[in-house]
Amino acid sequence: MIKIGIVGGTGYTGVELLRILATHPQAQLTAITSRKEDGLPVAEMYPSLRGHVDLAFSSPEKAKLTECDVVFFATPHGVAMAQAPELVAAGVKVIDLAPDFRLQDVAQFEKWYGMTHTCTDLLKEAVYGLPELNRAAIKSARIIGNPGCYPTTMQLGFYPLLKAGVVDAGNLIADCKSGVSGAGRKADIGLLLTETSDSFKAYGVSGHRHTPETIEQLQYMTSEKVGLVFTPHLVPMIRGMHSTLYARLTKDLTNEELQALFETAYKDEPFVDVMPFGSHPETRSTRASNMLRLALHRPANGNTVIVLVVQDNLVKGSSGQAVQCMNIMFGLDETTGLKHVPVMP
Amino acid sequence: MIKIGIVGGTGYTGVELLRILATHPQAQLTAITSRKEDGLPVAEMYPSLRGHVDLAFSSPEKAKLTECDVVFFATPHGVAMAQAPELVAAGVKVIDLAPDFRLQDVAQFEKWYGMTHTCTDLLKEAVYGLPELNRAAIKSARIIGNPGCYPTTMQLGFYPLLKAGVVDAGNLIADCKSGVSGAGRKADIGLLLTETSDSFKAYGVSGHRHTPETIEQLQYMTSEKVGLVFTPHLVPMIRGMHSTLYARLTKDLTNEELQALFETAYKDEPFVDVMPFGSHPETRSTRASNMLRLALHRPANGNTVIVLVVQDNLVKGSSGQAVQCMNIMFGLDETTGLKHVPVMP
Amino acid sequence: MIKIGIVGGTGYTGVELLRILATHPQAQLTAITSRKEDGLPVAEMYPSLRGHVDLAFSSPEKAKLTECDVVFFATPHGVAMAQAPELVAAGVKVIDLAPDFRLQDVAQFEKWYGMTHTCTDLLKEAVYGLPELNRAAIKSARIIGNPGCYPTTMQLGFYPLLKAGVVDAGNLIADCKSGVSGAGRKADIGLLLTETSDSFKAYGVSGHRHTPETIEQLQYMTSEKVGLVFTPHLVPMIRGMHSTLYARLTKDLTNEELQALFETAYKDEPFVDVMPFGSHPETRSTRASNMLRLALHRPANGNTVIVLVVQDNLVKGSSGQAVQCMNIMFGLDETTGLKHVPVMP
Amino acid sequence: MIKIGIVGGTGYTGVELLRILATHPQAQLTAITSRKEDGLPVAEMYPSLRGHVDLAFSSPEKAKLTECDVVFFATPHGVAMAQAPELVAAGVKVIDLAPDFRLQDVAQFEKWYGMTHTCTDLLKEAVYGLPELNRAAIKSARIIGNPGCYPTTMQLGFYPLLKAGVVDAGNLIADCKSGVSGAGRKADIGLLLTETSDSFKAYGVSGHRHTPETIEQLQYMTSEKVGLVFTPHLVPMIRGMHSTLYARLTKDLTNEELQALFETAYKDEPFVDVMPFGSHPETRSTRASNMLRLALHRPANGNTVIVLVVQDNLVKGSSGQAVQCMNIMFGLDETTGLKHVPVMP
Repeated sequence: MIKIGIVGGTGYTGVELLRILATHPQAQLTAITSRKEDGLPVAEMYPSLRGHVDLAFSSPEKAKLTECDVVFFATPHGVAMAQAPELVAAGVKVIDLAPDFRLQDVAQFEKWYGMTHTCTDLLKEAVYGLPELNRAAIKSARIIGNPGCYPTTMQLGFYPLLKAGVVDAGNLIADCKSGVSGAGRKADIGLLLTETSDSFKAYGVSGHRHTPETIEQLQYMTSEKVGLVFTPHLVPMIRGMHSTLYARLTKDLTNEELQALFETAYKDEPFVDVMPFGSHPETRSTRASNMLRLALHRPANGNTVIVLVVQDNLVKGSSGQAVQCMNIMFGLDETTGLKHVPVMP
Repeated sequence: MIKIGIVGGTGYTGVELLRILATHPQAQLTAITSRKEDGLPVAEMYPSLRGHVDLAFSSPEKAKLTECDVVFFATPHGVAMAQAPELVAAGVKVIDLAPDFRLQDVAQFEKWYGMTHTCTDLLKEAVYGLPELNRAAIKSARIIGNPGCYPTTMQLGFYPLLKAGVVDAGNLIADCKSGVSGAGRKADIGLLLTETSDSFKAYGVSGHRHTPETIEQLQYMTSEKVGLVFTPHLVPMIRGMHSTLYARLTKDLTNEELQALFETAYKDEPFVDVMPFGSHPETRSTRASNMLRLALHRPANGNTVIVLVVQDNLVKGSSGQAVQCMNIMFGLDETTGLKHVPVMP
Repeated sequence: MIKIGIVGGTGYTGVELLRILATHPQAQLTAITSRKEDGLPVAEMYPSLRGHVDLAFSSPEKAKLTECDVVFFATPHGVAMAQAPELVAAGVKVIDLAPDFRLQDVAQFEKWYGMTHTCTDLLKEAVYGLPELNRAAIKSARIIGNPGCYPTTMQLGFYPLLKAGVVDAGNLIADCKSGVSGAGRKADIGLLLTETSDSFKAYGVSGHRHTPETIEQLQYMTSEKVGLVFTPHLVPMIRGMHSTLYARLTKDLTNEELQALFETAYKDEPFVDVMPFGSHPETRSTRASNMLRLALHRPANGNTVIVLVVQDNLVKGSSGQAVQCMNIMFGLDETTGLKHVPVMP
Repeated sequence: MIKIGIVGGTGYTGVELLRILATHPQAQLTAITSRKEDGLPVAEMYPSLRGHVDLAFSSPEKAKLTECDVVFFATPHGVAMAQAPELVAAGVKVIDLAPDFRLQDVAQFEKWYGMTHTCTDLLKEAVYGLPELNRAAIKSARIIGNPGCYPTTMQLGFYPLLKAGVVDAGNLIADCKSGVSGAGRKADIGLLLTETSDSFKAYGVSGHRHTPETIEQLQYMTSEKVGLVFTPHLVPMIRGMHSTLYARLTKDLTNEELQALFETAYKDEPFVDVMPFGSHPETRSTRASNMLRLALHRPANGNTVIVLVVQDNLVKGSSGQAVQCMNIMFGLDETTGLKHVPVMP
């Protein structure tokens, strides 16, 4: 059994980790920290966990995280970088669901997150936790920067095209849509049902933190200079993410050849589903599961290829992906504890 | 492995059976019938099942249901009663999610469902599939009438009170609220998002089919004549059911004694969660799980006791309960394949 | 033109007042106060008002409320009672959308709102602003306690029955459901879309502030002692309120006679729609309008009468009713500025 | 008073016409046809209209449409072209909310709508009813093809850019999102709340009827060949449309100059609101009103300009725009009956 600690379990990525790990056959939930909720049984805050999770929140001092095999950080940025050195030194694996260990470009991190990076040594060895593109490095990593939700869809959607060098890497557009849980569990008027329900809007259009993260990763796939316009939108739904990706073809490919690029790239991937050409994946077809689905389109057989990508932002977009990394790091079958059938309707 | 057939798998109770059975360790999905969709892979209609269910729909003639160990009917009323005799004669267990085998009072069935009951012999031996109240009979049953969604909440909510004889059985009120999936998957303008979203209404207030079913069962719990007013409402949500039950106390009990009635009645039940007195269970705390939760209130310490009951109408209210019955009938641990943690948020 | 001031216009009842008054032909919006937002154009906080409202928020000191003809308080409890004396002394009419002037029973106010009532002199002359039952007093009032949203539905729903003395006043049940806007516009995790959407729950079942207000008013309708169980629920929708009222008949009436009680009581009312017996009013049929609709049921022709009542909680349940009172107080046609057709779908 | 007939008033654009016209000071609702609902009072199908619309549906034969001043067609394609000739001959103005008179390119119409155009003579004189771009022609038109909902946002969003010749007209992308009411009021499983709620998807990505309509109109704005990729998506909300438009700048403009292009183009328009540069308009800020709002962005000050456009798809996107056309045709102030303040929250 893997002894597991969770720092900051009161948010949505935290409770989603708990939902997944509660039935993971190799996971032993050992500690979950929250300074504010010290002593409160987790199931009292989240009645959905009654009968599944007996743990109580404990303050960090009491939590004995160094006795864990792995610690997940489901915290705001800045927390993991402060605590990771001690844990890593104690031989504990660290998986950070926040951005502290995602961006190798420290200047970009500091620009977009408005704080000094205090742990650049560990950052250098940190591995970007996208298993489909980084599996070998994850296997031996001591510290994982778990990808952002939007970046996961953009990378897996653009990867086969960039790798094959068939699109103009300098002019990528990602028009992305997320359910409200992507904004986290916080007391913010802008996230009320009364403010977000039965409405739709874009946000952060002039600039968003996931742009530099995504460009850094996309740049590994091509020698051309990557140019990306990323436009996030808020959908009146709880979970789910839909990215509509646009790229300009620079080679003369048939639709079958395009489709084959994707099918080949992901043919052994348990959590990437390449749907038939021309499909319209729905976010709900991935609800509460770790599956990401995508489909290709080419309007009027022109030179624009569209990739539609869907996932559950809290699972493949966050906590599920983190557990997938854990499985790899501990030599388990990658799908262990992640075989949930999507909940539909 | 239990060989399983499903008749009518294109509706919501059908796809929910598939979601549950796809990861049930003892279930072998053998046949799923749909005359209209003969040959269509199930996962093509329900992309959420891609990678989980390989079966295709087949017309009833081809389905060889008599070779199954158990057949679930996820059909409109009238279908199970037509096919059950042949299956039962062949030694196949039958679990009907529709009402054909729920009501022992044939006249009531015929009045409310507008058709002649053609299978009254089998009806006599049919067992009402509410495990918490009927476990022993279910164990040896050949044919199960799986309870309606609303009746499940009303029976489990009123049972400890009626059994103990502490309320006026002649004046029960059940104000119940259901998500839209309770109405099934059918092309009906009244169920469109544009008609049901951001709105709330009652329906069937002057009379509903679940009233006679519930009264028949409640009457087994008491020697007093049962009187029940049942008022269903439609909630703009997909899944979930909330019943607010009102009963008049006829005995002088403390709140602790009231609470004890429920805790005692359900102390060994894996799928009934008696929450602390004064709790407000939310439907989402049971989403996609087989758990039913309830809590007691007594406003102003008066003589009205309120029982709040929540469940997922498609799981404990239908397909999950059916699988729970199957587990009992085949000697499995009752929770096999039903340990899903509710999906929250 | 009536010069109008609004205190506390940043919440939902405030912005709804602005929506209504912006097209009211006799209203001249003069001042709207918010200490926190001093100087901010209202339309910047509420872009829906761009082009309709030019006013900016101003701090109370600058607002010159004493120069208004009427001041609405769209504030938390406690604010109106502090400012009303000065305004009334200056000849300004006061309409309080909060509870300060609703309850004549000061002890009840202090118990449920947890503060001392500092304005009991004015309270004595304050008029409860439910036009259908209190029109004459409203006409000459200097200060109005505008009814709570739930109480409006309960009073108008029970009134014809209590007035006629045909039901057991001691055993009334009101099972009520409200959209989330009823909780106001505040940074509260419990009101997030992610917490309330696709779910349903009751709240405040053991006791709610609207119970004493409603009982005080219902008691005026009958000489029997009123007993009321009131159970509020939260519906995953923005606006709308649905109350399901239960009363026990003590007289032998036909359904026609029951229906006649309501049709007679409300035959001249522009904002109460008595629908045909057995109808199921939907909340959306009143969306964004000042109309309240109701319909009667009598399950199995038994001795329980059910009244289904719907309204828009922000209009007839609050700001619309307040404007209706204003129209009466200033001698205008009662429907002036309130003729909105409900928005459907 | 203008005598008004509506053909096909049972759908959402029909009931929205009724909502608007019921309070239009110059409108006299004279006839509304529905063969299927002949004799049914409109308010019985749409209780929101109780007290506002007394008319009953009548079969076309009885409706005496030739005695009207104007007839609106709120019908599927093909109906208006069959009835328009007789009406126009009788001197009745025709406003078609369906596509029969939108596309001058008959071949495109026949390709996308799968039927022969039987009224090409009248089509030639028909005017495309987008007042902001076509006001003079609308004024003297006998027959109006009212624009599609998506095309309205794309045209008003791209117009100032194309007119000024500052973007690459051959590479326009429109990523558009619509509430479910855009699909109409029809019994279709794909539109159920249970199928569309809490989910998001694209549809018609490989080709959609609104593409040729939009390209035909955009082509009038520029001498370059227009290339447009249009991607529609379905949002789990009732009303509202959000278009995210991407264009590549071909001239070196400052953001102020870009903003000025839009402010100049729309400075006298009552129903186009150019928001400050960098704003994020929400669909709800236009709910139930005829206002369209837009805002510009330029990520990383690069060469991509983004135009965010929102409207209520049933008002400015359909019925409101039709009434705006009617006002122009009959010499009324263009805003008559269209001054609704958006409903928020």
